[in-house]
Amino acid sequence: MIKITFPDGSVREYEQGVTGLQIAESISPALARNVLACGVNGETVELNRPINEDAKIELYKWEDEEGKHAFWHTSAHLLAEALQELYPGIQFGFGPAIENGFFYDVMPKEGDVIKEGDFEKIEKKMKELASKDEPVVRKEISKADALKEFKADGQDYKCEHIEQDLADGEITTYTQGKFTDLCKGPHIVSTGAIKAIKITSVAGAFWRGDAKREQMTRIYGISFPKKKMLDEYLVMLEEAKKRDHRKIGKEMELFMFSERVGKGMPIWLPAGTELRLRLQDMLRRIQKRYGYQEVITPHIGSKNLYVTSGHYAHYGKDSFQPIHTPEDDEEYMLKPMNCPHHCEVFAWKPRSYRDLPLRIAEFGTVYRYEKSGELHGLTRVRSFTQDDAHIFCRPDQVKNEFLRVMDIINTVFSIFNFTDFEAQISLRDPNDHEKYIGSDEVWAESEQAIIDACKEKGLNAKIEYGEAAFYGPKLDFMVKDAIGRRWQLGTIQVDYNLPERFKLEYTDDDNTKKTPVMIHRAPFGSLERFTAVLIEHTSGHFPLWLTPDQVAILPISEKFNDYAVQLSKYFDSVGVRTIVDDRNEKIGRKIRDNEMKRIPYMLVVGEKEQADGTVAVRKQGQGDQGTMTKEDFAKKINDEVAEQLKATEM
Amino acid sequence: MIKITFPDGSVREYEQGVTGLQIAESISPALARNVLACGVNGETVELNRPINEDAKIELYKWEDEEGKHAFWHTSAHLLAEALQELYPGIQFGFGPAIENGFFYDVMPKEGDVIKEGDFEKIEKKMKELASKDEPVVRKEISKADALKEFKADGQDYKCEHIEQDLADGEITTYTQGKFTDLCKGPHIVSTGAIKAIKITSVAGAFWRGDAKREQMTRIYGISFPKKKMLDEYLVMLEEAKKRDHRKIGKEMELFMFSERVGKGMPIWLPAGTELRLRLQDMLRRIQKRYGYQEVITPHIGSKNLYVTSGHYAHYGKDSFQPIHTPEDDEEYMLKPMNCPHHCEVFAWKPRSYRDLPLRIAEFGTVYRYEKSGELHGLTRVRSFTQDDAHIFCRPDQVKNEFLRVMDIINTVFSIFNFTDFEAQISLRDPNDHEKYIGSDEVWAESEQAIIDACKEKGLNAKIEYGEAAFYGPKLDFMVKDAIGRRWQLGTIQVDYNLPERFKLEYTDDDNTKKTPVMIHRAPFGSLERFTAVLIEHTSGHFPLWLTPDQVAILPISEKFNDYAVQLSKYFDSVGVRTIVDDRNEKIGRKIRDNEMKRIPYMLVVGEKEQADGTVAVRKQGQGDQGTMTKEDFAKKINDEVAEQLKATEM
Repeated sequence: MIKITFPDGSVREYEQGVTGLQIAESISPALARNVLACGVNGETVELNRPINEDAKIELYKWEDEEGKHAFWHTSAHLLAEALQELYPGIQFGFGPAIENGFFYDVMPKEGDVIKEGDFEKIEKKMKELASKDEPVVRKEISKADALKEFKADGQDYKCEHIEQDLADGEITTYTQGKFTDLCKGPHIVSTGAIKAIKITSVAGAFWRGDAKREQMTRIYGISFPKKKMLDEYLVMLEEAKKRDHRKIGKEMELFMFSERVGKGMPIWLPAGTELRLRLQDMLRRIQKRYGYQEVITPHIGSKNLYVTSGHYAHYGKDSFQPIHTPEDDEEYMLKPMNCPHHCEVFAWKPRSYRDLPLRIAEFGTVYRYEKSGELHGLTRVRSFTQDDAHIFCRPDQVKNEFLRVMDIINTVFSIFNFTDFEAQISLRDPNDHEKYIGSDEVWAESEQAIIDACKEKGLNAKIEYGEAAFYGPKLDFMVKDAIGRRWQLGTIQVDYNLPERFKLEYTDDDNTKKTPVMIHRAPFGSLERFTAVLIEHTSGHFPLWLTPDQVAILPISEKFNDYAVQLSKYFDSVGVRTIVDDRNEKIGRKIRDNEMKRIPYMLVVGEKEQADGTVAVRKQGQGDQGTMTKEDFAKKINDEVAEQLKATEM
Repeated sequence: MIKITFPDGSVREYEQGVTGLQIAESISPALARNVLACGVNGETVELNRPINEDAKIELYKWEDEEGKHAFWHTSAHLLAEALQELYPGIQFGFGPAIENGFFYDVMPKEGDVIKEGDFEKIEKKMKELASKDEPVVRKEISKADALKEFKADGQDYKCEHIEQDLADGEITTYTQGKFTDLCKGPHIVSTGAIKAIKITSVAGAFWRGDAKREQMTRIYGISFPKKKMLDEYLVMLEEAKKRDHRKIGKEMELFMFSERVGKGMPIWLPAGTELRLRLQDMLRRIQKRYGYQEVITPHIGSKNLYVTSGHYAHYGKDSFQPIHTPEDDEEYMLKPMNCPHHCEVFAWKPRSYRDLPLRIAEFGTVYRYEKSGELHGLTRVRSFTQDDAHIFCRPDQVKNEFLRVMDIINTVFSIFNFTDFEAQISLRDPNDHEKYIGSDEVWAESEQAIIDACKEKGLNAKIEYGEAAFYGPKLDFMVKDAIGRRWQLGTIQVDYNLPERFKLEYTDDDNTKKTPVMIHRAPFGSLERFTAVLIEHTSGHFPLWLTPDQVAILPISEKFNDYAVQLSKYFDSVGVRTIVDDRNEKIGRKIRDNEMKRIPYMLVVGEKEQADGTVAVRKQGQGDQGTMTKEDFAKKINDEVAEQLKATEM
């Protein structure tokens, strides 16, 4: 008999060789029906893998990332199986599960081309194969046998992968029906669970991501255990397309890109700049209340700075390369992070325990090289501005600082109606303390501080062991947006490494020199990413306090342009942000254009309004709201803004 | 007889060969006594140079840059003459007049060292030589003769200069007493006018500024026609030392430098950041009223962007060098200017004549390489943030845009009490229109627009012909600070070049495509430079609305710390910025420290104040101001701020 420990700490005994599926069955038939994979001592494996010794076990369902991952991984194999039947002679590269679904990189034999028109055929073939409910069979295989087998199949890419990357004794294959793949797993136990399938797109992708190698065909797909889930997903996808921040950003004239300035480097247009400055001001006000001090540092630093910080050794090769000077006696680098600069601010003058916590904030623009193929709107960029801060504190202050940062993040989330969010605590690998910098005591203290802080805030945080960075534990926040997608936003990260590398110190109350703990944190993450999420969350319908132009004044003809300008001046004087659409266009066109620009309110003004000093109010997406005096309308707007901003004053 | 035209347009006839001095004598003996050099058709020459044909003439006195320049240039020769007597065998490099005085780079013969202790001796010798009132004699000389003469004197540097840089037929020497220098002039006619002399400093300087060549000794000095002027200058210098922004910036903790981040790249500390953000907000408010739209662009651009703009060809070699990427298929550069980025913003969508003027503003941080030896505090840096804007307009809008920018600059100057300022209009060289880009008509129109705009504003602007950039005329502002020093601040520059290079266009009302005119402008110049000037102008005593901390609350002992915090919260709620000095220090020490930090008001609080809810007010530099209720004090502060900010609302 072996002892199986469940996540809640309870322990049951099972016979040696028991499988995850059998354990699930022993609990309930419903669980056994829904379980997809299982975790054994932290490793995800198939449900039919025998467990031979005492183990901690987790049973993963669709709702768990691990369950979805196994499901999609098997779906990728199913895709390959279908392609093998449809396109004989096709060669396979890699085919992993991804965040939403899976893909497979393939090389059809000469003359074969796979394009969008073929998706239906592929889906049909996949469904046909899935309906056979073939078991997915794992096999351990020697390097020589693997090579022989895949060479016989004419799978050159698989052979290259075996030869270059894999060692004897660690190679496994998974087979379903007539298809065998070189693969580490994990998978679901048979293909019958895959009930709904959609091939979503096709694109080119270099073998191994190397632009010097062959371009393969990457086929993306997604699959679900129920048809209804696919339907919901497709609706969500359609909705997501409408909310694409790149499309809305253009319509609202928030930001632009210029190839000549550089790929992946957003330029904030006037409306976007207003939005961003308002976001910054909001966070500034909150941070001020929490005792932050703002600094402004250069966007470059000497190479030596990053050698000291360790960033150069880690990232130097993959970054924008060093900048030489005409005299060539110095080298600089674009800053990928603000932390080294803030360490220099800390080190500028002697600090005492009474000065701590020292909270140094900066809206710091950083530059990180990303491959051009991986750039995406505002969410994957080469330049972005972090709402960064570094808290230098004593070890005994970590918990309180976490509580305070969590308050700030909570405030920010509530302002934007991100009511649904999750948190993840990343701790050390309990079985390997060696790979972490910093003493066991300090780690234990910090880890406990984070756990306690979450408990104190009633935050349901998932603990992930082994996910901490080598320099400290962290807490991440994931928000769910209006159409159910998850986005990683705020992060709080403890750091023992940089203070040591920069030899930072403070004088403690016993007059000895001590090293401070450093906490990195960013509630938005970056202004670019947050703006993108906000656009997609709100469809560009920003809260009134934030939106660049709150009101568009639309004279029904040029005769009333003067009245419109007069109104605009009045509203300006009472703090309401207006624009006048004095174009020589029909009123219907003006309304449509300003709806498209997501202006929250439109005031249509003509003969009657001018005579009465009133405005005819239209609300974005809701049409006519009746006529009111300009004073009443201004009050309405200002009340609405005040109500929204209450959250920032908590 | 020849015709001499004076600056006021009047014309008089003189005999051929008449000199500047004779012309001055013909006007008044007083003028003849004070005149130092004269301008003949735009070229400055000695007063004893014969004029042989019709000419425009200007007579330069001490008050004119040209007069001072000739005076100091001769003083440099006087210094050399003295050194030649004091240090036989000394060799000479270059010895020009500079902004404040003159220097000479010299190489004393081996064993000789010139140091601060020698200054008195040198001054004495110079005065002794000056008292002989030796004439300064100009001679044209062939290259061969010049080489022979200076070789005979053992002047290796002069010989190198002749050989490498000078052509036959353009070489002149100037002799006074026993000293002859290779020199283009101009000079004053004899050394007797130099009545007061001060050698101010000595430093190392590479021959030709080339770090690979010999290090010479650079001796700085200044001289005046009257002893009283030197005394005043020395007082001013002493005062300037006290106001040095580098010293005050440290005391007030406004900014810092870190060698590890990089030389010449200021880091704004929390108090400096508050100050800077307040400056930015002030300008933002003003600019908003004047129809500016703000953008935020990256701090780098592709090399191609700067090839297009022409910056790469002009400055590429002397700049921070291109940034390579890991894939090495792109090159980027740190941006030295924001204009190319703003051109891309203009080009982002089609523009019509109705969209113009389009005023694109940015607080844009730029990077320009300066030699490390030339860096100085915040005034000569490698990274700085321009309060930049580019106005894209039609040619007929140039004058009105100039008027509007002048209004903004006026507003800014009046807010900071820069009541004394000058302007300079830089126009084309009337004799050489070839070297300028853009049509004659457009130039004429713009130049006239600037002149008219200045006239309309009653601005007494000096016109400098030939000082325009090749791409357009400009208007510069120089302010006089509290101790009489001049600083170049605001600039308005017309640009015909970039719009052409970027192929910018708008659709005019006749439906044809036209190229817009671009106007660059920066009222502050840069936030770094402006802050430096402001510190030196105010000695760090910033106006109350601007100063980071307006009030320091000083509890007389720890017993009253709680009351101090309570007060601080109250003041915070009514918009008064306070800090609490709760250090365990004597009250006298607290007052001294906060005086040093230039906090405008200090509130001393103890038993009595706590009991009465009052504060004992001290004003910076003025001591005790009596006791008042916290409400009265808050009102006093807010009234004072409101009064100061009136100017921004004009």
